[in-house]
Amino acid sequence: MKGIIAKEPGGAEQLIYTEMPEPELTDSDILIEVHATAVNRTDILNREGNIGYVENPIIGVEVAGVVLDPNDHPTFSKGDRVMGLVNGGAYAEKAVMPADRAMKVPESLSFEEAAAIPEVYLTAYQTLYWLGNLKETETVLIHAGASGVGTAAIQLAKVLSNARVITTAGSEEKLSYCRELGADVVINYKEQDFAAEVERATDGQGVNLILDFVGASYWENNYKSIAVDGRWVVIGVLGGSTVNQVNLMDLMMKRVQLTGTLLTPRSNEYKAQLTTEFINQTTKYFEEGKLKPIVDTIFAIEQAGDAHRHMEANKNIGKIILRV
Amino acid sequence: MKGIIAKEPGGAEQLIYTEMPEPELTDSDILIEVHATAVNRTDILNREGNIGYVENPIIGVEVAGVVLDPNDHPTFSKGDRVMGLVNGGAYAEKAVMPADRAMKVPESLSFEEAAAIPEVYLTAYQTLYWLGNLKETETVLIHAGASGVGTAAIQLAKVLSNARVITTAGSEEKLSYCRELGADVVINYKEQDFAAEVERATDGQGVNLILDFVGASYWENNYKSIAVDGRWVVIGVLGGSTVNQVNLMDLMMKRVQLTGTLLTPRSNEYKAQLTTEFINQTTKYFEEGKLKPIVDTIFAIEQAGDAHRHMEANKNIGKIILRV
Repeated sequence: MKGIIAKEPGGAEQLIYTEMPEPELTDSDILIEVHATAVNRTDILNREGNIGYVENPIIGVEVAGVVLDPNDHPTFSKGDRVMGLVNGGAYAEKAVMPADRAMKVPESLSFEEAAAIPEVYLTAYQTLYWLGNLKETETVLIHAGASGVGTAAIQLAKVLSNARVITTAGSEEKLSYCRELGADVVINYKEQDFAAEVERATDGQGVNLILDFVGASYWENNYKSIAVDGRWVVIGVLGGSTVNQVNLMDLMMKRVQLTGTLLTPRSNEYKAQLTTEFINQTTKYFEEGKLKPIVDTIFAIEQAGDAHRHMEANKNIGKIILRV
Repeated sequence: MKGIIAKEPGGAEQLIYTEMPEPELTDSDILIEVHATAVNRTDILNREGNIGYVENPIIGVEVAGVVLDPNDHPTFSKGDRVMGLVNGGAYAEKAVMPADRAMKVPESLSFEEAAAIPEVYLTAYQTLYWLGNLKETETVLIHAGASGVGTAAIQLAKVLSNARVITTAGSEEKLSYCRELGADVVINYKEQDFAAEVERATDGQGVNLILDFVGASYWENNYKSIAVDGRWVVIGVLGGSTVNQVNLMDLMMKRVQLTGTLLTPRSNEYKAQLTTEFINQTTKYFEEGKLKPIVDTIFAIEQAGDAHRHMEANKNIGKIILRV
């Protein structure tokens, strides 16, 4: 079977689609014929050789496809349409997935749409609920609202919690898309001071939760934007990782809870629990069309390098998909 | 009635015991004849004029005494022995306390012992459980183990959670006291590298929870000491407030949850809920002597200045009490 690896750690030009060994099925896995996979920033780090925790040389952490071998797991039959997270090995014709992490694909969705769900929706769900403890009608600030996780988080916060959503993005096109997805307040971070806009939009109270993909360059404005007893979850450092001068007394005065998180390196057990809760909370909304996977562009798997360059150019709204 | 105020914002010499108006009883309060109160660092900040949220000019946030007027609150009768947090006004002959925050004093305890309980035990309980989510048999690192909150936290972590307790202090006397209270591993931070000791004591796994009273000067070693998925609660900045160079990717890689907190400025409702849960969880252990208030020194209220100097010299083990 064929799969995508990086010849050497480096740029997108290192990606090649080449003959690889069949994946090895352990007792806890099912075997999947991959029909679509999706690009994540962790794939780029992996391609660059900057991640130590992925053992599979084939890149990619999520797939949608058809069960080839249910491997005695009674929940699944050969031919079932499934989607979910894998421990590497997604950019390939076949992949193995822990059975307790596989989700059945809602009937209304294509494989390309299904492949746009697992990583961003599970990350958004984990961040909003398991780490951010978002409650009904609270206000949440979602940075990078047009990104994969951003588009999922806007929808989840509205549909599951009727939260007030304030979101930032860098173009009018992205902002109007966020508004269509349900964002209540949209801020163009290139033209507006987002802390001042948040202050205005919340009557000076600040937001109860921040989803922060940006990190260092937003630190000060995020602190200004957070409410007393606010939760602040850092899930990316697109604006740099090193903050100069953090004042701990500031964190004490506002009683801020700051959490750093990554989904990919978490345990199999954690991912299984998260998957189960996510399915229970969201399946009916996907079936009703109230939650939608957001697909930006679909590339053939042979064009994985172009797909990576597209993400690196930061122009996508929603997910970049590879069709296998 | 008489109470302690600061003539002007400043040092301990500013404290005077002087005639003050009787406290005003609102519907939600009971009136207490104060028999003992205790010194907290927040009192020192208040004396220095560095706290904006305490409106009562009389210093102090906790009392033990006798109910003078239950004010139609059916839980209490005139003459009941009670202890608890007040919204300022503790260093005085009389104080008002929200009725839903008053705790009956266990029979075995004196007023001086009872006055040593509310602030430090509620802070320790809040930090370990509400913010730190300490679970059975986890490992907790408690800095300043001989401080008021430290001595309470060591006992709570052992008695309520059978946790493994690692604690730091700055003298052999303090360390041996921590060991008597139940600490499993004690570290002299003046002579040992605590991060190296924690690494050794946890086989390189780190601790699940850190109670941090120290802040900036311990930042790097605390980061080294925390386990993946660890919780780190900052409740004091005795070692400075400003941390240079915080790496957010580090927080993401270890999935750290960093929470800043202060108890005194929290809402009446929060304090009432915390008090209720604390009583339910701990009363029997105080009665059995498994949890003990730790009294360092008892001063007469007229010597409040000396009591503040004693805390500022940082030599106390447990609480400094004022007898009224």
